[in-house]
Amino acid sequence: MQDSGNKTWSGRFNEPVTELVKRYTASVNFDKRMAEVDIQGSLAHAQMLNKVGVLSLEDLQAIQTGMADILREINAGTFEWSLDLEDVHMNIEKRLTERVGDAGKRLHTGRSRNDQVATDIRLYLRGATDTTIKLIREVQMSLVDLAEKNSSVVMPGFTHLQVAQPVTFGHHMLAYVEMLGRDAERFIDARKRINRMPLGSAALAGTTYPIDRLYTAQLLGFEGVCENSLDAVSDRDFAIEFTAAAALVMTHLSRLSEELILWMSPRFGFIDIADRFCTGSSIMPQKKNPDVPELVRGKTGRVNGNLVSLLTLMKGQPLAYNKDNQEDKEPLFDTVDTLSDTLRIYADMMRGITVKPEAMERAVRQGFATATDLADYLVKKGLPFRDAHEAVALAVRYAEQKKKDLSELSLVELQSFSALIADDIFSILTFEGSLNARDHVGGTAPFQVLVQVAKWRERLGN
Amino acid sequence: MQDSGNKTWSGRFNEPVTELVKRYTASVNFDKRMAEVDIQGSLAHAQMLNKVGVLSLEDLQAIQTGMADILREINAGTFEWSLDLEDVHMNIEKRLTERVGDAGKRLHTGRSRNDQVATDIRLYLRGATDTTIKLIREVQMSLVDLAEKNSSVVMPGFTHLQVAQPVTFGHHMLAYVEMLGRDAERFIDARKRINRMPLGSAALAGTTYPIDRLYTAQLLGFEGVCENSLDAVSDRDFAIEFTAAAALVMTHLSRLSEELILWMSPRFGFIDIADRFCTGSSIMPQKKNPDVPELVRGKTGRVNGNLVSLLTLMKGQPLAYNKDNQEDKEPLFDTVDTLSDTLRIYADMMRGITVKPEAMERAVRQGFATATDLADYLVKKGLPFRDAHEAVALAVRYAEQKKKDLSELSLVELQSFSALIADDIFSILTFEGSLNARDHVGGTAPFQVLVQVAKWRERLGN
Amino acid sequence: MQDSGNKTWSGRFNEPVTELVKRYTASVNFDKRMAEVDIQGSLAHAQMLNKVGVLSLEDLQAIQTGMADILREINAGTFEWSLDLEDVHMNIEKRLTERVGDAGKRLHTGRSRNDQVATDIRLYLRGATDTTIKLIREVQMSLVDLAEKNSSVVMPGFTHLQVAQPVTFGHHMLAYVEMLGRDAERFIDARKRINRMPLGSAALAGTTYPIDRLYTAQLLGFEGVCENSLDAVSDRDFAIEFTAAAALVMTHLSRLSEELILWMSPRFGFIDIADRFCTGSSIMPQKKNPDVPELVRGKTGRVNGNLVSLLTLMKGQPLAYNKDNQEDKEPLFDTVDTLSDTLRIYADMMRGITVKPEAMERAVRQGFATATDLADYLVKKGLPFRDAHEAVALAVRYAEQKKKDLSELSLVELQSFSALIADDIFSILTFEGSLNARDHVGGTAPFQVLVQVAKWRERLGN
Amino acid sequence: MQDSGNKTWSGRFNEPVTELVKRYTASVNFDKRMAEVDIQGSLAHAQMLNKVGVLSLEDLQAIQTGMADILREINAGTFEWSLDLEDVHMNIEKRLTERVGDAGKRLHTGRSRNDQVATDIRLYLRGATDTTIKLIREVQMSLVDLAEKNSSVVMPGFTHLQVAQPVTFGHHMLAYVEMLGRDAERFIDARKRINRMPLGSAALAGTTYPIDRLYTAQLLGFEGVCENSLDAVSDRDFAIEFTAAAALVMTHLSRLSEELILWMSPRFGFIDIADRFCTGSSIMPQKKNPDVPELVRGKTGRVNGNLVSLLTLMKGQPLAYNKDNQEDKEPLFDTVDTLSDTLRIYADMMRGITVKPEAMERAVRQGFATATDLADYLVKKGLPFRDAHEAVALAVRYAEQKKKDLSELSLVELQSFSALIADDIFSILTFEGSLNARDHVGGTAPFQVLVQVAKWRERLGN
Repeated sequence: MQDSGNKTWSGRFNEPVTELVKRYTASVNFDKRMAEVDIQGSLAHAQMLNKVGVLSLEDLQAIQTGMADILREINAGTFEWSLDLEDVHMNIEKRLTERVGDAGKRLHTGRSRNDQVATDIRLYLRGATDTTIKLIREVQMSLVDLAEKNSSVVMPGFTHLQVAQPVTFGHHMLAYVEMLGRDAERFIDARKRINRMPLGSAALAGTTYPIDRLYTAQLLGFEGVCENSLDAVSDRDFAIEFTAAAALVMTHLSRLSEELILWMSPRFGFIDIADRFCTGSSIMPQKKNPDVPELVRGKTGRVNGNLVSLLTLMKGQPLAYNKDNQEDKEPLFDTVDTLSDTLRIYADMMRGITVKPEAMERAVRQGFATATDLADYLVKKGLPFRDAHEAVALAVRYAEQKKKDLSELSLVELQSFSALIADDIFSILTFEGSLNARDHVGGTAPFQVLVQVAKWRERLGN
Repeated sequence: MQDSGNKTWSGRFNEPVTELVKRYTASVNFDKRMAEVDIQGSLAHAQMLNKVGVLSLEDLQAIQTGMADILREINAGTFEWSLDLEDVHMNIEKRLTERVGDAGKRLHTGRSRNDQVATDIRLYLRGATDTTIKLIREVQMSLVDLAEKNSSVVMPGFTHLQVAQPVTFGHHMLAYVEMLGRDAERFIDARKRINRMPLGSAALAGTTYPIDRLYTAQLLGFEGVCENSLDAVSDRDFAIEFTAAAALVMTHLSRLSEELILWMSPRFGFIDIADRFCTGSSIMPQKKNPDVPELVRGKTGRVNGNLVSLLTLMKGQPLAYNKDNQEDKEPLFDTVDTLSDTLRIYADMMRGITVKPEAMERAVRQGFATATDLADYLVKKGLPFRDAHEAVALAVRYAEQKKKDLSELSLVELQSFSALIADDIFSILTFEGSLNARDHVGGTAPFQVLVQVAKWRERLGN
Repeated sequence: MQDSGNKTWSGRFNEPVTELVKRYTASVNFDKRMAEVDIQGSLAHAQMLNKVGVLSLEDLQAIQTGMADILREINAGTFEWSLDLEDVHMNIEKRLTERVGDAGKRLHTGRSRNDQVATDIRLYLRGATDTTIKLIREVQMSLVDLAEKNSSVVMPGFTHLQVAQPVTFGHHMLAYVEMLGRDAERFIDARKRINRMPLGSAALAGTTYPIDRLYTAQLLGFEGVCENSLDAVSDRDFAIEFTAAAALVMTHLSRLSEELILWMSPRFGFIDIADRFCTGSSIMPQKKNPDVPELVRGKTGRVNGNLVSLLTLMKGQPLAYNKDNQEDKEPLFDTVDTLSDTLRIYADMMRGITVKPEAMERAVRQGFATATDLADYLVKKGLPFRDAHEAVALAVRYAEQKKKDLSELSLVELQSFSALIADDIFSILTFEGSLNARDHVGGTAPFQVLVQVAKWRERLGN
Repeated sequence: MQDSGNKTWSGRFNEPVTELVKRYTASVNFDKRMAEVDIQGSLAHAQMLNKVGVLSLEDLQAIQTGMADILREINAGTFEWSLDLEDVHMNIEKRLTERVGDAGKRLHTGRSRNDQVATDIRLYLRGATDTTIKLIREVQMSLVDLAEKNSSVVMPGFTHLQVAQPVTFGHHMLAYVEMLGRDAERFIDARKRINRMPLGSAALAGTTYPIDRLYTAQLLGFEGVCENSLDAVSDRDFAIEFTAAAALVMTHLSRLSEELILWMSPRFGFIDIADRFCTGSSIMPQKKNPDVPELVRGKTGRVNGNLVSLLTLMKGQPLAYNKDNQEDKEPLFDTVDTLSDTLRIYADMMRGITVKPEAMERAVRQGFATATDLADYLVKKGLPFRDAHEAVALAVRYAEQKKKDLSELSLVELQSFSALIADDIFSILTFEGSLNARDHVGGTAPFQVLVQVAKWRERLGN
């Protein structure tokens, strides 16, 4: 942490920094979003200093009054942020001293900007984590609703983008509910590590004042304190963990986006996205483009990039604080913004999806989607799996040449591939038969979809 | 999942793949390390098939005998891996059929290579996670021992690689124990998500056989089953989460490595690393190079790269399985190997560190390390913190010109910067005074170091 | 560069490295692929030493004979690589000394492993660069052939995966020829920087022997020598540049792969890929999966990861050589292998593509692909572009409701959107009309496609 | 390219986008920095349209006048940017139409936002490339000056951060001049590929107007035109190439920064950085922190992250334009800003370095820096290199135990390691002797440093 501010440390310096250096090293343009948590942290620190007898009640009250005024100024947009004062911390402290005099100068007793900034980031990120978890839940709910409504709508399940087996659209939606469920778990886990308090570590070694860290932690809602001061001021692993979890959310939504884009292409035509999430073309009047999912797919790169930035940043830094760490904020803030906007827009967009069951059903008819069902049928009649597989492969090849689906072959034709086939086969080769047959935990049967919907409704409290 | 094997799916294919295609698409060279878990999974699957009445007891026993033989062949190195059979799964299944005939052909009933491979990776990674946690504990113990032995050895605490305040070497070591403690937590959290069973999801939609997934899960020690078949076969977020956690371990060890390299440089001379972790030079006979920490620093890039590979891989893939996913294994396996080798070597290396307290103490004397103590002294005498800071800055500037440490200034000289200074200042400006004054949770005082050592010994059960 | 080898630098060491350390620090398992260039470099170095009078003719001849034998052993697979000797350089030098005695011990005069390894990598990479350029040319040729054959086959040009305007399949193929053309340029540019010789920089500072670097460079075909010894042994920017260029090739082929996968999906059905690049399924007998393009898409992540590894590796390393640099080889070698295999397989695969013009034409009919032509028509009749755009947008909306293409509307219907429309409009709204109208450099008109085909045939000398 | 603007494509849309969607999809906040090149491109396009007879002279002049006014408004800060108009292009075009009526509506004839934005980025990036090359030259000059001034100042050359051999500080500075020289080459090479014109490619397929692309290209200073319209609007490889080159510059400067930080640490004390590039501490009054090099090291992560973002973005996108591509701008602009600020500040900072030759010389005395010289001496007396190496290793071990440098051993002591040593050895073991002996191209001898300084002065024209 550069610990500066033009007046603060100028005592031993011979020349001021240039304008470019000032701009290059200042952080106030991006760290002012931490103003509220910075004040929150300062107030708790002051209250603790008073409790242990280092700060008088008079000073504490002056600080409380001054900070309340400053917060009002910030919220009203009248606070004047100064690049000369370098960061959010010095801007606020300076203003405090202007308003309340010596009490303001006593606020920094027993702390340093190193532990102050580490505390601010954690308070900020704790809030962002809670918001993230809430927003993930909202996207999940919009998907659960969609799943319920389409629990028995048949669509082609693809592997390798080739038609594989019939699945329900509801089942497909629930796949993403599962992914997002794990994402939420990861943020809940990360929150435990975010929510520990560095304050009291001072510059790097702790402080000579008789501070009561547990009291401050309690005031700020921290679950515990960082138990090593060097570690507390220098590590940012919690920010990297948050960003890695965010990259996974974006990866999951990028996959769903890829599918929405495919499905909205006229080649698929499986869905339509509401106009308010699409744009047209400056030159092609017929266009309706799925801009939002495309941007989500693109913004995945952004969060991956932020993750790489943060990992690169920390690599090989000796303890304790180095100025490199100032570069932790922009990638982290950009990740928070990208993630929350994306989740918010996704929750809304999924409610605006129009499903086109006929197109899905037409598509599942092209691709021998029930070939596995035929093979399973043969196995149940006694053929070893591998032999059944081979028999069906030949049947498919034959049907392909005849340009028919398996269900369109005659019994005689089918029997030419295996004498085990009888006329009970035709109910097996329907989509309904195929779907309903996969009736176990995790299977695509409409009944299982509804079971999962109920499970998620309970989990999501909705 | 490419689900092939030359005979298996050739029924509808007109031409064989070329040698290059075979090599490009085959995975047996790297996935054969999953042979043991593949067999373990197959045995549990077969046992479940028998329980639900799909597989006869006779077939089950044939499979059990055959697999026992195959495992012996693999362990003895006599198993012949064939590129033609593409992957570990087909190699083993083929060999099983050679040995036990039709029973072998029945093993694949009710599953697919898609859920099979997903299950194998999770079983493999669960084991790797347990090993990782154990190895992290070992490195922590070696650091705790070092911390205890050096709980009151004074060294310069650096920020910006400038001397900041005195700290103890024990305190410094414990900073890494904290980091590694969070790393272990992350693997414990990740394990919950790794340890869920995809088996039963078949290709993508579940299966038409009356399988009992919970029974199989219990046999294999899984905590639960993946509750959506599409998700189960297509996502690899658990592998990415593992790799992200590994990247943080490497980042932490890269920071410690940077410090070891600095400290072993003659410019610092704070420590020596045992010869067995160092190498010499082909041309400079005097060299002793800290190869191991340098490689650890370098290998951090490797794990970061693996993380990027995996994230890039998954981005934008439609459901369910695509062959892209075959590329998940090499980055993951390389991460597991790099991580476990690095932890193993680190646990050993830290036990071979020689600490040089005199060099550390000499270094702490250069840099006005107790300037903060002087400022705190003035604050306690009533000066506002910011004014005290300015007074000390001027004193430092003066001392620098005189080429003296603050503690070497006379009382008269010191008093020229503040009349509040009395001769009780000199005990404050000693290193012992400075260290012992930081006596709160997380502070660098030798007493606190020993408290932390005791806490960690209890946690680590050692 | 660790400059070791068990005997070489053991003089001042008290204990040998452990097995784990040996394995962790050794590179012979992966750097032995540089054996041939290592020998080539050594022979040139020896010849130079003889020329400047440092090595006797007798010694030179002994070295030449010994190296010829060693190369034969390596090619025959009889050379015994030893992990104890750590790397390719020490393995070869040791064997040389076994065969020719003191002459072998004199070979290392005036060089160090630091400049030796830097020279080897460059020689190796120069060869890989030449191969890469050649292979890119081959892929380009296969695409040019395809473009020529399909110069007037109409397909839907997509933006946002929505039908935008008709394009020719030939034009589409040529887009990739352009991308690959820039890729080849980048390798040609990178080659200049690869092809400079570090040899003679010794460990870091140059050598005290009267070496003639230009002579050695000439023998080895280098275009110049590295003009600063510290830079020469420590930087690996040329390897990063190669990898960045490779990442772009993979990115381009990843895009083409995405298209091949889409086009081969039954939803598109635009092409078929020859069976020898596809595989089937272990469970779904009907499947034919485009494995090769999927793997190419997946392997893109691999090369991106290698790029991140290398950049992370170099970040923040002080001069000159650090052991971190040993980690440069595996990502680089993996990049070379992935890239050359992918290009090789792509050149072959594109020759095995079957184009399905009817499916493409059916698809272009869905999506009002000639709406822009209608707008341009109105502009040419005098309407400002923005007004024409709006009129056509309304016509499209109307046609969509009527479930007709624009060309299927009656003149009266069309005129209801603009009185400027006359019956010459219908020739404009055909695909042929639309394609042929875009007849300028870079446009999709069949004539322009053939012009570009001719241009590329000349450039590619084919 | 989303091709929208509220009025522009609303004809077929039923509902407007929400505020969040508007903010999520709009780019005007970041792409307005391309306003000047956007106008430049539009003017050339209009002039070409007039030349080929598509635009009247009157309209052309109206456009020229209107654009001149708009540029004035933008420069004066009075232009009102509207989020509703989504991007820089629509904002300017709308304003133009407000000012000049129908002529403004005709400007977009024969182009699309897809080729317009691709053209703007290239024009912008061409300028940024030229600035980058110029700034690299300035940093090089500051380093060359420093090298000349310190051409014979001896310092320890490190490998593995262990003292290896004496080098000159001038030689060390020139290592970075070489690196930056290659960086400049890379930008010169990249510029060729940046400076090709997409304009005329329209949305994706070219246009039906009789445009003259070569004329427009000439007006805009492009070296050529993109010869395939699909490629022209969809690829961003030139931006990735720029970013990869930028990542290498940052990597090189990150290495130099690491060294500056080390050298300014009191443990080294080799240099001092001018106060204006440093800051103090909020709590430790004695601190002077090398903030600028630390930030440069940290910002390297930022550019690496941008590179990953861009590569991830493009991976797997089908042709032609997808909205994902809008995400190309922020990483690119951030790279341009980070790079140019960093280069600017570095050129200035290197001129403010104070070199401390005595500290460097003291350091080179610790570490047996001339051991290689002793080995070379023995070789020249006839000992094979490997034997000489071993003899010196034993001598170093002996000297280390005696706590003496090699040059401080007596002749008798030295001779105990080899009878070949005579009293001419002592001039060999001086630093001057060692430096001057490395007198070949690329060597560290002061004479060679001056040769290189002269070479670079000529190249840099200074």
